[in-house]
Amino acid sequence: MTEPSPAESVTARAGTNIALIKYWGKRDAHLNLPAAGSISLTLAGLGSETTVRFARDAADQDGRDRVLVSGQPASERFAARVRDFLDLVRARAAIGLPAEVRTANTVPTAAGLASSAAGFAALALAASRAAGLVLSPSELSELARRGSGSAARSIFGGFVEMNPGARPDGSDAFARPLLDQNAWDVRLCVAITATGSTAAMVATAETSPYYASWVASVPRDLDDARTAIAARDLPRLGAVAERSALRMHACAMAADPGILYWNSATVAAIATVKKLRADGVAAYFTIDAGPHVKVLCASSDAARVQAALAATPAVMRVLQVAPGPGAQVTSEES
Amino acid sequence: MTEPSPAESVTARAGTNIALIKYWGKRDAHLNLPAAGSISLTLAGLGSETTVRFARDAADQDGRDRVLVSGQPASERFAARVRDFLDLVRARAAIGLPAEVRTANTVPTAAGLASSAAGFAALALAASRAAGLVLSPSELSELARRGSGSAARSIFGGFVEMNPGARPDGSDAFARPLLDQNAWDVRLCVAITATGSTAAMVATAETSPYYASWVASVPRDLDDARTAIAARDLPRLGAVAERSALRMHACAMAADPGILYWNSATVAAIATVKKLRADGVAAYFTIDAGPHVKVLCASSDAARVQAALAATPAVMRVLQVAPGPGAQVTSEES
Repeated sequence: MTEPSPAESVTARAGTNIALIKYWGKRDAHLNLPAAGSISLTLAGLGSETTVRFARDAADQDGRDRVLVSGQPASERFAARVRDFLDLVRARAAIGLPAEVRTANTVPTAAGLASSAAGFAALALAASRAAGLVLSPSELSELARRGSGSAARSIFGGFVEMNPGARPDGSDAFARPLLDQNAWDVRLCVAITATGSTAAMVATAETSPYYASWVASVPRDLDDARTAIAARDLPRLGAVAERSALRMHACAMAADPGILYWNSATVAAIATVKKLRADGVAAYFTIDAGPHVKVLCASSDAARVQAALAATPAVMRVLQVAPGPGAQVTSEES
Repeated sequence: MTEPSPAESVTARAGTNIALIKYWGKRDAHLNLPAAGSISLTLAGLGSETTVRFARDAADQDGRDRVLVSGQPASERFAARVRDFLDLVRARAAIGLPAEVRTANTVPTAAGLASSAAGFAALALAASRAAGLVLSPSELSELARRGSGSAARSIFGGFVEMNPGARPDGSDAFARPLLDQNAWDVRLCVAITATGSTAAMVATAETSPYYASWVASVPRDLDDARTAIAARDLPRLGAVAERSALRMHACAMAADPGILYWNSATVAAIATVKKLRADGVAAYFTIDAGPHVKVLCASSDAARVQAALAATPAVMRVLQVAPGPGAQVTSEES
């Protein structure tokens, strides 16, 4: 491995993803090793674009990596997280140069869609390439995981499974693609609900008596979801996705004090999804660690689902999103 | 034990109760043996009054026990349940006479307050007395349990603990009083929310992977609640009551398919309670197998709690209830 040309700049893009079989719980917090597997859908049009350049002149005035978000200096907290990640890349590539990182999200703020998954997937690809590393997709996924557990999945497009792995060093904890983004014509409608009231309710889930049973319940959900995805069986996938989401929230609710992410619009949107199903529309919800409701459906039903969600009281707006590709290099300059 | 005079009629009254440490799960469905203990508050003014008379002329035209609810013939389902219960009393008293049962509830319909607890507590007292049995409160509680698991608690007033017992015959599964209804000046505000949408979501909890952990988590909740009640420590009792309610609902939510009793007003009322607490009012919620929210507070705060709940969107009306006495005989005629 040779030190890359100081002028080389690599830009990569990755989409965010939504877990259908939820990721909840780590077996190693430092290495971001999950306690159980997960299955997600990478989204189109909602993601991050990140440019990385390792160069002597890339450092900020304090000699540290320069980290810009949408052209502005990043928060200290985010910059520190990016610098820790760049240290991993530098160690692996055996280079000592500082880096300039420019990142921009196309995930709407407050949309309840994690931008860190897309951000660290794009960063892993751009930074490793800019550092002269040639990594396989699995290696890239493992690297992205160090930045954010869910970023490991955003390396791939469409339906993706994260393997929790068993090794203490995490070398077997990476994602793999299940179904390409073009292989199944589904949509995800995201119902954005009012936020704010739940922040104070967040506490640790270490006190949940259901945590061990949650982790033990995941393998069966993964099996069911994998089978349903392979068969493009939406009712089956939807049922297991709802089961996984409810069990994740139930596990958190059982903590002491209880963690309740939902607001009244969350429950109303769940009722809307059930009503749609009673009316014959194959629509299935999932909810992450927040109040917004994401609804999986066939693309032919997406307009109807979006309209029903938009008409639900206290739902603020509804996005409609298609499955998207994995992390891609969009430009390379030297 | 002698056969009672055919004309003897006994009227008894009992209040309904709300579990603060939830009852959820049976170790024996036929004998109504609970899988775990529970702690409840018996309520004043919401209950049942039941009159029982064993006599040759008490039977209906088919020769069966005549069962009247508010003066009208009971549904077949309810009448069958009452007749099964009367068979237990007859077997114990060694009498063969049919009975006439007249019962009336003072629990508002659709208030989300179980009337079967009060009904079977009053029936146990009136029927056993009318049959000439002289039962201790523990024996009465054990008998009431056969009619309805929660009825065992309504034999006593104020704060009551149900012992799950360990014997297969249920002879040690009865309730005992913890604190008299006049010993602690608390109130329960009941926020009635819209109903209907959740009925279709009810399914069996046999499929919940959290069920064993739920049962295992109850003894600690009981210990905490018992200590808090003895000390009249409302914040401590409230915290464990909320924990118990959330864990019960979380256990049900984790079933397959998930059981979700809540509607949007349920979540809004929870938020109101949290807001009241942030404003310094010691108010704590509990929720039973339905969407209504019951809020425990000091009687001096009850008006404020009631007003805040009434102002919560989609809450239909709010009852304010005081702790009540146990089952009492109100008249005996011969």
